[in-house]
Amino acid sequence: MSIAKVLVVGTGLIGTSVALALREQDVAVYLADVDARAAHLARELGAGEEWSGGEVDLAVIAVPPPLVAEKLAELQKREVASAYTDVASVKAGPIADARRLGCDPASYVPGHPLAGRERSGPAAARADLFLGRPWALCPGTGASADAVLLVRELVSLCGASAVTVGADEHDSAVALVSHAPHVVASAVAAALERGDDVALSLAGQGLRDVTRIAAGNPLLWQEILSGNATRVAVVLDRIAGDLAAAASALRSGDPDEVTDLLLRGVAGHARIPARP
Amino acid sequence: MSIAKVLVVGTGLIGTSVALALREQDVAVYLADVDARAAHLARELGAGEEWSGGEVDLAVIAVPPPLVAEKLAELQKREVASAYTDVASVKAGPIADARRLGCDPASYVPGHPLAGRERSGPAAARADLFLGRPWALCPGTGASADAVLLVRELVSLCGASAVTVGADEHDSAVALVSHAPHVVASAVAAALERGDDVALSLAGQGLRDVTRIAAGNPLLWQEILSGNATRVAVVLDRIAGDLAAAASALRSGDPDEVTDLLLRGVAGHARIPARP
Repeated sequence: MSIAKVLVVGTGLIGTSVALALREQDVAVYLADVDARAAHLARELGAGEEWSGGEVDLAVIAVPPPLVAEKLAELQKREVASAYTDVASVKAGPIADARRLGCDPASYVPGHPLAGRERSGPAAARADLFLGRPWALCPGTGASADAVLLVRELVSLCGASAVTVGADEHDSAVALVSHAPHVVASAVAAALERGDDVALSLAGQGLRDVTRIAAGNPLLWQEILSGNATRVAVVLDRIAGDLAAAASALRSGDPDEVTDLLLRGVAGHARIPARP
Repeated sequence: MSIAKVLVVGTGLIGTSVALALREQDVAVYLADVDARAAHLARELGAGEEWSGGEVDLAVIAVPPPLVAEKLAELQKREVASAYTDVASVKAGPIADARRLGCDPASYVPGHPLAGRERSGPAAARADLFLGRPWALCPGTGASADAVLLVRELVSLCGASAVTVGADEHDSAVALVSHAPHVVASAVAAALERGDDVALSLAGQGLRDVTRIAAGNPLLWQEILSGNATRVAVVLDRIAGDLAAAASALRSGDPDEVTDLLLRGVAGHARIPARP
């Protein structure tokens, strides 16, 4: 079985980028969005045609996390596709919602491409957004092998690498490697509000890198963080504790404790896999 | 007056990079280092010749911050150069040390190029390390105009942009834009030690950017942070407070407080000047 027709519901940055990547592979893509202007722009960018309700092999639900399950239930009820996936950056919540709404677990393979940009919306979309990036898949025990195969093919067509992982494990992982780091970058950037122009003129590449993701859409991120709140809070408390301890050690002239944090940082940094 | 001969004392990453940049501009460069192997490697890399004690226009003291004043006093006593500068990333401490050791304030123009790499030592040096980067200068009230001109010419020859700033203001600024962000990057990276391999396999570009500088030399950074301890502690406490408050707001389901931090992050990030 191979993907010939895909429906993308939600033509924001991720949905439109998926659509553009599939178009480059000559997959027929149909687009839908409650925001008619976003859908129009995505079509203008060559991301696909307007969806008229026809059947597809795969439906990609690229709407905000709290709306995923509702959209899934609606599409499954209409028997639109053989398989369904989503791209929400939290997984346990949407999966629990889907269960509550009585969605069919056989045709639903939850997903999360680990890619993004500071800009959002279809105009920021890029066909190569997922190239070489990890793409988490969290199929439930009831997922059909055919549905999993279709979604894995989607990941492959987008040039990404599938990583199969449990939903809870996924949410803990992204709290650590994505969500908490975003809040930390925001806090470093927020501190800059107190600097004068001369201070800011001394900014180097290090500060630019640490704070780059802080430019991301605050409302989008508030939604992501709220959907993974407890797990993110655990990581943030740990980091806040390390920083407060470092501040205290610096004040009391105890360099060893600071060196220890720096050494742990070197060790932790070395654990990040090299880009493929 | 123009720079024809420069002595670089300390052939680490910064000293050797200064030397290489000057060699590209056909300035005669002499090298000295207590570590004979480092000096030898710098010479092998084409950074200059061994210094035999002759006079130069400008001496660049590129030794660790706590050793700057002692080296300055020694060189001034021997009347080696018309002007002296250093490249230490903290300024108030070395300046106070120099005053205590009776150094001549007329020929000393403290400096700090805002550039670096995660690797250290002469092998990591690059002639273009300072290209387009800010280079802070903190001349005291007693500095001679000739000395200031010579050091500004050095900055210009290295392709950097001079930013004149008071020493205390400099140290507060770099605490905010460089030193505290380094500790924060280390804390985010240190948290990764708790992640399993699957979690780390989901790392994206955001995490790589936030933690890049955490790979820096811990002993070098411990020294930098110790030299600016109180100012760095103030910034770290503020960031730790924001993170603890965000964690608490996430736990209590109060998204507005988190959104507020994210919005402040966007505003602070926007204050970083675009790269020239």
